[in-house]
Amino acid sequence: MTTNDLKAKSVPYKLASRLNHSESTVVQVGDRKIGDGSVAVIAGPCSVEGRQEIIEIAKELKREGAHLLRGGAFKPRSSPYSFQGLGETGLKFLAEAREVTGLPIVSEVMDIENLPMACAYIDMIQIGARNMQNYPLLKAVGRTTKPVLLKRGLSATIEEWLMSAEYILSEGNPNVILCERGIRTFETATRNTLDLNAVPVIKHLSHLPIIVDPSHGTGVARYVPTMSMAAIAAGADGLILEAHQCPESALSDGQQSITPEEFSRLMQKVEVFTSALQKDGVTIG
Amino acid sequence: MTTNDLKAKSVPYKLASRLNHSESTVVQVGDRKIGDGSVAVIAGPCSVEGRQEIIEIAKELKREGAHLLRGGAFKPRSSPYSFQGLGETGLKFLAEAREVTGLPIVSEVMDIENLPMACAYIDMIQIGARNMQNYPLLKAVGRTTKPVLLKRGLSATIEEWLMSAEYILSEGNPNVILCERGIRTFETATRNTLDLNAVPVIKHLSHLPIIVDPSHGTGVARYVPTMSMAAIAAGADGLILEAHQCPESALSDGQQSITPEEFSRLMQKVEVFTSALQKDGVTIG
Amino acid sequence: MTTNDLKAKSVPYKLASRLNHSESTVVQVGDRKIGDGSVAVIAGPCSVEGRQEIIEIAKELKREGAHLLRGGAFKPRSSPYSFQGLGETGLKFLAEAREVTGLPIVSEVMDIENLPMACAYIDMIQIGARNMQNYPLLKAVGRTTKPVLLKRGLSATIEEWLMSAEYILSEGNPNVILCERGIRTFETATRNTLDLNAVPVIKHLSHLPIIVDPSHGTGVARYVPTMSMAAIAAGADGLILEAHQCPESALSDGQQSITPEEFSRLMQKVEVFTSALQKDGVTIG
Amino acid sequence: MTTNDLKAKSVPYKLASRLNHSESTVVQVGDRKIGDGSVAVIAGPCSVEGRQEIIEIAKELKREGAHLLRGGAFKPRSSPYSFQGLGETGLKFLAEAREVTGLPIVSEVMDIENLPMACAYIDMIQIGARNMQNYPLLKAVGRTTKPVLLKRGLSATIEEWLMSAEYILSEGNPNVILCERGIRTFETATRNTLDLNAVPVIKHLSHLPIIVDPSHGTGVARYVPTMSMAAIAAGADGLILEAHQCPESALSDGQQSITPEEFSRLMQKVEVFTSALQKDGVTIG
Repeated sequence: MTTNDLKAKSVPYKLASRLNHSESTVVQVGDRKIGDGSVAVIAGPCSVEGRQEIIEIAKELKREGAHLLRGGAFKPRSSPYSFQGLGETGLKFLAEAREVTGLPIVSEVMDIENLPMACAYIDMIQIGARNMQNYPLLKAVGRTTKPVLLKRGLSATIEEWLMSAEYILSEGNPNVILCERGIRTFETATRNTLDLNAVPVIKHLSHLPIIVDPSHGTGVARYVPTMSMAAIAAGADGLILEAHQCPESALSDGQQSITPEEFSRLMQKVEVFTSALQKDGVTIG
Repeated sequence: MTTNDLKAKSVPYKLASRLNHSESTVVQVGDRKIGDGSVAVIAGPCSVEGRQEIIEIAKELKREGAHLLRGGAFKPRSSPYSFQGLGETGLKFLAEAREVTGLPIVSEVMDIENLPMACAYIDMIQIGARNMQNYPLLKAVGRTTKPVLLKRGLSATIEEWLMSAEYILSEGNPNVILCERGIRTFETATRNTLDLNAVPVIKHLSHLPIIVDPSHGTGVARYVPTMSMAAIAAGADGLILEAHQCPESALSDGQQSITPEEFSRLMQKVEVFTSALQKDGVTIG
Repeated sequence: MTTNDLKAKSVPYKLASRLNHSESTVVQVGDRKIGDGSVAVIAGPCSVEGRQEIIEIAKELKREGAHLLRGGAFKPRSSPYSFQGLGETGLKFLAEAREVTGLPIVSEVMDIENLPMACAYIDMIQIGARNMQNYPLLKAVGRTTKPVLLKRGLSATIEEWLMSAEYILSEGNPNVILCERGIRTFETATRNTLDLNAVPVIKHLSHLPIIVDPSHGTGVARYVPTMSMAAIAAGADGLILEAHQCPESALSDGQQSITPEEFSRLMQKVEVFTSALQKDGVTIG
Repeated sequence: MTTNDLKAKSVPYKLASRLNHSESTVVQVGDRKIGDGSVAVIAGPCSVEGRQEIIEIAKELKREGAHLLRGGAFKPRSSPYSFQGLGETGLKFLAEAREVTGLPIVSEVMDIENLPMACAYIDMIQIGARNMQNYPLLKAVGRTTKPVLLKRGLSATIEEWLMSAEYILSEGNPNVILCERGIRTFETATRNTLDLNAVPVIKHLSHLPIIVDPSHGTGVARYVPTMSMAAIAAGADGLILEAHQCPESALSDGQQSITPEEFSRLMQKVEVFTSALQKDGVTIG
């Protein structure tokens, strides 16, 4: 038994640990690889609001360089009286947007009942922060082969987060991507505290890819571009961004959504930033 | 429109608010009332471990004055490799323990699939802290008429907690009991920080009963009796306690479980405490 | 070397630990003992606002049963533009109030410069939450023989708090009383989260007395009486309460100050509560 | 009165606000400007341990590109039994290291008594996290003209932090540099949670420079280089880093200290990173 074997025994996650799987995992979503050293950009509105709206924004985001399209059809809203999403209709609209743009689509699934139906439409299942420890749901997505975007819970430790990944991996689905989206602290100047420490910590402890959500991580559109750069410098494998044609009239999360124009400027920065670094041989992360 | 109507508009929970329902709600679970000014004591092991074990502890707890029996059949464990509970078999054993002792039974349900089956056995559905914002599950229990024990999420604000209650109430089930079980903070001397402030705050904002879980709220058996007294003094409508014949060999949460002997001493304190106070006309809370 | 000696080696605080000092410490402040099993009540305004005001409220509080008088002369305000306290003049007014009422006086000292001067007036030095890790100040009060009321820092762990007590004890001053005044968490319904778990934890780990500040611990006058009862049930050796003749016009902390009438009702509850418990032989804590 | 004047009224900090001072402040420390768009690197050991040691590490750090030298002479240790620093002797050694290397020196001052003496040696006064709300000390440094490095308190909100800066500014000292060093959260994989959101938030709200301390912000040497890059990408005006010739034998904070070799590699990354970005016209922050 090697030293590494012994060390592996002391972490409660086995399949998620880098000790047992030294090579970084690359997850393929549609035609896009995540975790291969490039920066994957997932963008789209918080909620799918209508057929026209999602197709239009998808076309703009595609044109500006997005690699995947996000959009919520089932929305975990804190109020039962808030817009709860379009459900399967929303997924149909997302699938149409994919047909038009070629962008693979990512959407949240909140319960086991809707999982088979949702899998028929989407390319990557998102597990939201509030469901990070919904173990029956984790086991169910673990029994599919779909890529899973596992968001960190609002007050989940990094170890608990990896244990939730372990639930999915241990059911047989190796395609897990972690998503840091901010944790809950006492600070009120931002919606959440984006814990970028988590990026190098996860890279050290695990072989799974990790992307960052600066939209939820700050809660304020103005800070999204800067924190996107910081996330890339911290070694993130990608970004997930809320973008909306008209943030003021968004049905959810308008305050943290950027416009297509802001997205365009952000993508230029991302490109210059990553190519400049590669050109100069700086390895980030 | 009265002043109260206007005020009601400014809180996001309508049915849970005391502004629209000034009288305190009393929930009946089996033959026990919760919220009527008495202190209801729910006790039992973290997990149902076997038929003999649950019947035996139920008899002891009944003899010492417990009013309801708790026991986990479906366990939300942070590790997929930990004991996950006996499932329906566990519920059958609980039902047998009820038959023997007459104690109504409380057990956690983690998914919609198992809800109808579980409802056939149990008297009160527990929604665990990790599922406080599992909205499809909340809606599903809202469509039953079973009493629901809604635990506060690890980092849920009081407002978010009341909004989760609102999900259940708005589906038609008025039988919601809130349970403060400690929140996650930086302190490590205890497993969680028991937020007893939440008791008078909930009493002020809402008409729903609130009970306290000092077992999870401290994580240390030694502190459970004292914090039980503090919870009652804060105005709690009841306690939920982890008790086990042999805490050291419990399959889960042994460190915070009290023995039947400790439970017996605690119940004597509870009785003297509440009757002394009533005798002297002190209204708590 | 006994087992306890060995255990003592594993906690970083030596003089504050109960392992090396099994008997509970009783601190005498003026003619009042704190830590002897009774409940000491310290009350007064947040700030000393004037001679008449402090003498008047002191007389009322004395009449209603307060044991010590508090009042701030040096105020740690988050804004440099807020009222900073009357300084030495405030201490003179406090001393006059003591002369009139016989109540020992407690007031905060924020720097070493003013310590000798302040010691000439006051009976107990308060170290505020923001100065809990102001080590030069702790050492300086440790070189006096005055009783010290050491408030817990906003985000101090219980171990760090005991280490700050250790700074005072190790300089030769054994008269330290700890004060739980709420910690900073994500919850916004209350100003702080009153951590009553800290009371039994401190009683277990240390021989030092501990009192509770429900005024800062809740930040809302309405919740102060209830949380005072909860603190006593948790085993606290006393309470420190903000009281003001006219909370709406207080120069600081009006929202959390109770009126003399509310104080009177609270003291009746405290008395009935403690005597009822003693009569029935219930040992709290 | 303009819109901005009105807005200024609604923030409690006046002198620290960008509304009243739109141009970014540049602070000169020795011959180094901080806040002018460049990245200033402050490095050195946690504690000054001896004359030879500090001179030697200063020479190495200077050679590798550091712009300022840090070193603690007065150490705020949580235990009274831990090494408390060399005091004035430490400051003398720092001054010798400056003479040898030309690097301006930064060191923490913990009390008013030692302030005039310390000012005779050092180029920038550090106010530590535990003293962020030590108002008498803030006022005292505000009455000097020395640059002040104001570290964020462990649980201070951004607004409270700016209010502490306001204490210094309002006494007449405009040379304040803010330092984000991590906040206290529930996460235990890192010593603190580095809140890089604070960088763009401060840049938006205030004209003061802000630097980042990834040594305390992570508590783990392995993560320091990556989080240094993230801090620069977030728009920080500089870094403050703990470096030690032999971290394993450091008298304090060895776990988070990098070696001179690691510092050298980090500085190469910083240089390539910043020049690559400038070359490509990417404005960070």
